[in-house]
Amino acid sequence: MQITSASNEKVKYARRVREGREAGVIFIEGLRLAEEAVSSGLTIEACFYEVSEKADARAEALLELLKGKGTSMLPATTEVVHSLGDTVQSQGIILLARRPQRGSERLRQTGSTLLLGLDRVQDPGNLGTLIRTAEAAGAGGIVSLKGSADAFSPKVLRSSMGSAFRLPLLEEASAADLQVLQSAQGFTMVAAAGDGEMDYTGYDWRQPTLLLLGNEGRGVAAELMQQCDVRLRIPMHAGVESLNVAAAGAVMLFEAARQRRISA
Amino acid sequence: MQITSASNEKVKYARRVREGREAGVIFIEGLRLAEEAVSSGLTIEACFYEVSEKADARAEALLELLKGKGTSMLPATTEVVHSLGDTVQSQGIILLARRPQRGSERLRQTGSTLLLGLDRVQDPGNLGTLIRTAEAAGAGGIVSLKGSADAFSPKVLRSSMGSAFRLPLLEEASAADLQVLQSAQGFTMVAAAGDGEMDYTGYDWRQPTLLLLGNEGRGVAAELMQQCDVRLRIPMHAGVESLNVAAAGAVMLFEAARQRRISA
Repeated sequence: MQITSASNEKVKYARRVREGREAGVIFIEGLRLAEEAVSSGLTIEACFYEVSEKADARAEALLELLKGKGTSMLPATTEVVHSLGDTVQSQGIILLARRPQRGSERLRQTGSTLLLGLDRVQDPGNLGTLIRTAEAAGAGGIVSLKGSADAFSPKVLRSSMGSAFRLPLLEEASAADLQVLQSAQGFTMVAAAGDGEMDYTGYDWRQPTLLLLGNEGRGVAAELMQQCDVRLRIPMHAGVESLNVAAAGAVMLFEAARQRRISA
Repeated sequence: MQITSASNEKVKYARRVREGREAGVIFIEGLRLAEEAVSSGLTIEACFYEVSEKADARAEALLELLKGKGTSMLPATTEVVHSLGDTVQSQGIILLARRPQRGSERLRQTGSTLLLGLDRVQDPGNLGTLIRTAEAAGAGGIVSLKGSADAFSPKVLRSSMGSAFRLPLLEEASAADLQVLQSAQGFTMVAAAGDGEMDYTGYDWRQPTLLLLGNEGRGVAAELMQQCDVRLRIPMHAGVESLNVAAAGAVMLFEAARQRRISA
């Protein structure tokens, strides 16, 4: 049975998921992101899809795969799928999936020696870009401190391009969680700070490191800054006060990757 | 005379400027950006400001400075200024300024040996972040190719944080403009490309270089790619296909800055 009304109960439920009002369920829009979610092993609760004349081979393959897994398949009219979509580019597929579990155990088990910590990063584009950049640079996980934006909101997922499904993510983390990583797991905790005492290229990124980045306007909170072992600055041309947090993160994470490639 | 109506002719004109419908005039919102515009020597046509009880010393100083320059000062009610503002954070000041001239002459005269070229970068946040990052890394100018977003639109200005006022900017540039920079001015033209033949850290960034970055989805156009001397890739962790263009630009521009600091 094709869903033809935007006030169908399942559509209403999906809208609540999109708005972050259904704990434990996330909203995944678009073919590419849906493929990433499925290949990352997320549990898919439901799949809304547009019933269309022009078949897309990739979309068909994904739908077949989901049917085979026993996913609740919900064909709908173009209008319904578009009404549900957070963007104009839903590409006719929307998944509701179970939110990945808080990744503290996975984070411990990765054996990674590079982690990214985010203290109250608010802009969804920045947060998503940082998660994507961290994975690209070889970081093994994300520690997102209390007060950061939701890494699984639709906007952040779009910017993270599936990296949020793959990287272990410790959400709602506290100063105590960072302390455990430092003392029990031996991570050096470095913060990006405009007035940091060390040039980020002078730091030895081969040691197990957690890089902590702060809020767009206010940087890393004072109490967390005190907990850091080193504060790193990026030398900048006179007249420029700061970098966008996602740019600063990219610069430091890929300096880590560069140093590690050289030493490998 | 305080402006009390959002349908005042001057307010309507300002709204057209904000929407990019008045050639040669740009819309600058917020105290910080207004300060940057004035200190960068832009010609200010008009200043709308909120008449408020609580005086802000920085805002007062800027208003005095503008009055002294003979700027058309337009006091308005909070409602009018907010109706005009593109964000909630107008901080009560909006300037209309003459658009900086196409910077081909200034670009030639900077003597800079690092330029950033942008081929159809569309997202305002990405474009603004790239302009800001380029200035921070010591680049001497921006070459924005036809089809890129407007570097002086309100959203891009907010992300560029005043860098667009300071850096020479060659807008609506063509392949021929790039050719001139290559042949007459001796710039090596390098493109960021996922399948580039050289690791970006293996390139010698001390030579005069124009780094060309492409559109978010499609990269650098094929005809421009052919014109490039080298295509550089950023080595990435398996599973990640690409970086956000502003992140990739930050990584490469600061590798250039790092190499140049070491050699200096």
